[in-house]
Amino acid sequence: MTTTRRAYTVVLAWVEERLRSGELSIGDKLPSERVLAERFDISRASVREAVRILDVMGLVRSATGSGPSSGATVISEPSAALGWALRMHIATKSLPINDIVQTRLLLETQAAVEAAETLDSADRTEILDRAAELITVMDDPGLPADDYHLHDTQFHLLLASLAGNVVVETIMTSLRQATISYVQETVAGVNDWAEVRDTLQAQHRVILAAVRERRGDDAAQALREHIMWFYGLSGEK
Amino acid sequence: MTTTRRAYTVVLAWVEERLRSGELSIGDKLPSERVLAERFDISRASVREAVRILDVMGLVRSATGSGPSSGATVISEPSAALGWALRMHIATKSLPINDIVQTRLLLETQAAVEAAETLDSADRTEILDRAAELITVMDDPGLPADDYHLHDTQFHLLLASLAGNVVVETIMTSLRQATISYVQETVAGVNDWAEVRDTLQAQHRVILAAVRERRGDDAAQALREHIMWFYGLSGEK
Repeated sequence: MTTTRRAYTVVLAWVEERLRSGELSIGDKLPSERVLAERFDISRASVREAVRILDVMGLVRSATGSGPSSGATVISEPSAALGWALRMHIATKSLPINDIVQTRLLLETQAAVEAAETLDSADRTEILDRAAELITVMDDPGLPADDYHLHDTQFHLLLASLAGNVVVETIMTSLRQATISYVQETVAGVNDWAEVRDTLQAQHRVILAAVRERRGDDAAQALREHIMWFYGLSGEK
Repeated sequence: MTTTRRAYTVVLAWVEERLRSGELSIGDKLPSERVLAERFDISRASVREAVRILDVMGLVRSATGSGPSSGATVISEPSAALGWALRMHIATKSLPINDIVQTRLLLETQAAVEAAETLDSADRTEILDRAAELITVMDDPGLPADDYHLHDTQFHLLLASLAGNVVVETIMTSLRQATISYVQETVAGVNDWAEVRDTLQAQHRVILAAVRERRGDDAAQALREHIMWFYGLSGEK
């Protein structure tokens, strides 16, 4: 078992080295399981373990089916992977929800300040318009709560994307993904979802207006109140 | 292949559910490969893939050897896992180093402000004393550069730990781990390491004094200059 355990790490190290050197890029295919197994003189099961890990980490997409075109393709989708990892560590109780919320608050208010300060551009206009459209969609009383939260997440990420730091966006998305089930539990425990939604919508409008009008501190403040108010609904402190 | 691909996710979902319900906690052992394979009617190879993933994610430690005591033990070490994942995504060029540095700056300066504001306690005194000791160790001109950086990382994490947010600490550690090879490359490209070390040490002293004397803004400012100065050495912007 010890040997098998170490075998897959050879493949991971090789992939990292090739990515760093540029010999392997997003969109490229990894060699097939058989080729990798022969190259490193390890079992195909060990190669498959490495590919599964890369898959879960959002680094490759494995083709289903088999044949010559069935190799894994290099991608980079860090948020889903990091979100899953954070969620699992929250489940072990080693990462408290309160610390997750505080971290989200810190990153997101800073992003709001920077978003508010961005110069005029077609990009800025388009992002702010899309954010406004999302608010309109969320106004629909017939929108199921789960769909509401998907749009809500989109709204927050869109505004943060204006700040232009993809690492902050990735971490924000991961923190959101890590806590989505807690959000769902909060909403399930709420007596009057329509009323909660009205408050959230009013808050969203205040945040968007502040970013649009370049009032960064107001945007940060409104965001802080918005997040803490919703978090307060869960009855946790 | 499709079937095998999905098989391991059943084990991951089961582990998450048991962690959330509290039936499984840190220190507990997972059932053996054989038992899990039978329970979910999947191959032992699929179970092993799930365990490898949990292992890489810092969620279990697999025992080497075999026998009844060879099951994987539940742990929670998120930083190593997240650091590795971030490093791999940096390698794909989807996460720019500059954004990593800016994110680190944001989290670490905020932590410094909060660290400076903490009330007197035995814990605070001990942490500040340990940070001072680390500075003394790093003063040794004979300390190899790699060891210097290990101590340096410890110093920064110690101060941040005063702020008491484990998610911020986890992300800071992960960002550090993700960029360690870039730090090493920077140092390798530096002509006069002794001179660089003198500057870093003077900066460390200023930061520690500001935290100790509860001058949060000074601590944040000194930290910002410290990080940006070192990052500037790499010649990147």
